[in-house]
Amino acid sequence: MKNVKLTIEYDGTNYSGWQIQNNAITIEQVLEENLKDITGENLKIIGSSRTDAGVHARGFVGNFLTESKIPSDRFRNILNSKLPEDIVILNSEEVELNFNSRFNSKGKTYSYTVLNTPQKPAIGRNYVYHFRRDIDLALMIEASKQFIGTHDFAAFKSSGGNTKTTVRTISSLKIIKQGDYIIFTVTGDGFLYNMVRIIIGTLMEVGLKRIEAKRVRDILISKDRTMSGPCVPPEGLCLEKVYY
Amino acid sequence: MKNVKLTIEYDGTNYSGWQIQNNAITIEQVLEENLKDITGENLKIIGSSRTDAGVHARGFVGNFLTESKIPSDRFRNILNSKLPEDIVILNSEEVELNFNSRFNSKGKTYSYTVLNTPQKPAIGRNYVYHFRRDIDLALMIEASKQFIGTHDFAAFKSSGGNTKTTVRTISSLKIIKQGDYIIFTVTGDGFLYNMVRIIIGTLMEVGLKRIEAKRVRDILISKDRTMSGPCVPPEGLCLEKVYY
Repeated sequence: MKNVKLTIEYDGTNYSGWQIQNNAITIEQVLEENLKDITGENLKIIGSSRTDAGVHARGFVGNFLTESKIPSDRFRNILNSKLPEDIVILNSEEVELNFNSRFNSKGKTYSYTVLNTPQKPAIGRNYVYHFRRDIDLALMIEASKQFIGTHDFAAFKSSGGNTKTTVRTISSLKIIKQGDYIIFTVTGDGFLYNMVRIIIGTLMEVGLKRIEAKRVRDILISKDRTMSGPCVPPEGLCLEKVYY
Repeated sequence: MKNVKLTIEYDGTNYSGWQIQNNAITIEQVLEENLKDITGENLKIIGSSRTDAGVHARGFVGNFLTESKIPSDRFRNILNSKLPEDIVILNSEEVELNFNSRFNSKGKTYSYTVLNTPQKPAIGRNYVYHFRRDIDLALMIEASKQFIGTHDFAAFKSSGGNTKTTVRTISSLKIIKQGDYIIFTVTGDGFLYNMVRIIIGTLMEVGLKRIEAKRVRDILISKDRTMSGPCVPPEGLCLEKVYY
């Protein structure tokens, strides 16, 4: 028995997210079906997160236990030769038997990309949230600082998801403008269900001057989901890195 | 009767290029079908180029003659409300009756994007030519200068296409590196069939030290297609702008 850790890039456009479900194709399912072909075993991959439909990843981590004699570092090339082109294994390596991608995660970095132009895009449309109206970046940056630190993020969580506590720590939240793109990069010890997308949605409301920049702190204290902004669409979101 | 000029962005991934053909879906076909729904007329769109399958455009130009009473600038929004999301009309405007997108073109700018990483990409894979091996950018830039000016580009043309002369003028060919991306931007008065992709393919051979940088001039003089490099894949190519 050995424990193999995979680092995975995927384009989530054509999938109903990571986690296996009925009547929908998911990334976990495609990987497990391919691993069954390769090893003959009915393997379960433990994933670092449950990304939603349309969300992408450049550094998703999963691990599985196997009796296979295939060297752990060979799984990368074997899987890549079989997988559809929207899922790529970046690395495969043996890890200690007690390593668990989900529970051993110490933190994650997500990016979120907004394309702020009057005209919707054709090229690259699956990787951005297209947003037409002018937004005030300085206000958004001012507001973003209030998320840094340890807070109860109950107001920034969709219903669903099972977590003991809604307290999380955000260590970094950066907003940069690159041409017509606004790129958010957020790092924290963990994220509640839809937390990143609701934080970005709230910052967009600040940028539109519909929520005052200084009110973020009050919204955190309220723990009231109806006080925060909308959950922005999935296609702008990308899981960049998982830390162990 | 009026003449309407369209400026079009498209993601060419799911199309067999611009021009109508049997048993394959093309961008021209999708646009003409939608224009028929809108105007009731069997219109023909004259396109500035015939992009190949998988090639993209950020500034393709087409024009059509119509008896429709719809204001020319309204075609943009009407078409955008009906078109699939991989084709977007950026602008529609009335032009003089004798304007012809193809024959009045004074020049074009194309970009070509290479992703130079060991690992193939999942995200954005349809917009880049993924190239694994190390290439020498300085040699490529040195070689690229020999393309500037007026030359007979017979050695840089695939068979097919109907042109009276193989003489063309390239006014600019820039190569920049942005992270793992190498972006070529080339402007000329016109391009032969596959000319941009064969020029890039030749420069890649120079970067691999399989063609000497100074030999580009000899290949031009040879007019011999067997002397130049391969035609690189379509997905890295994008028609950026057409000049009138």
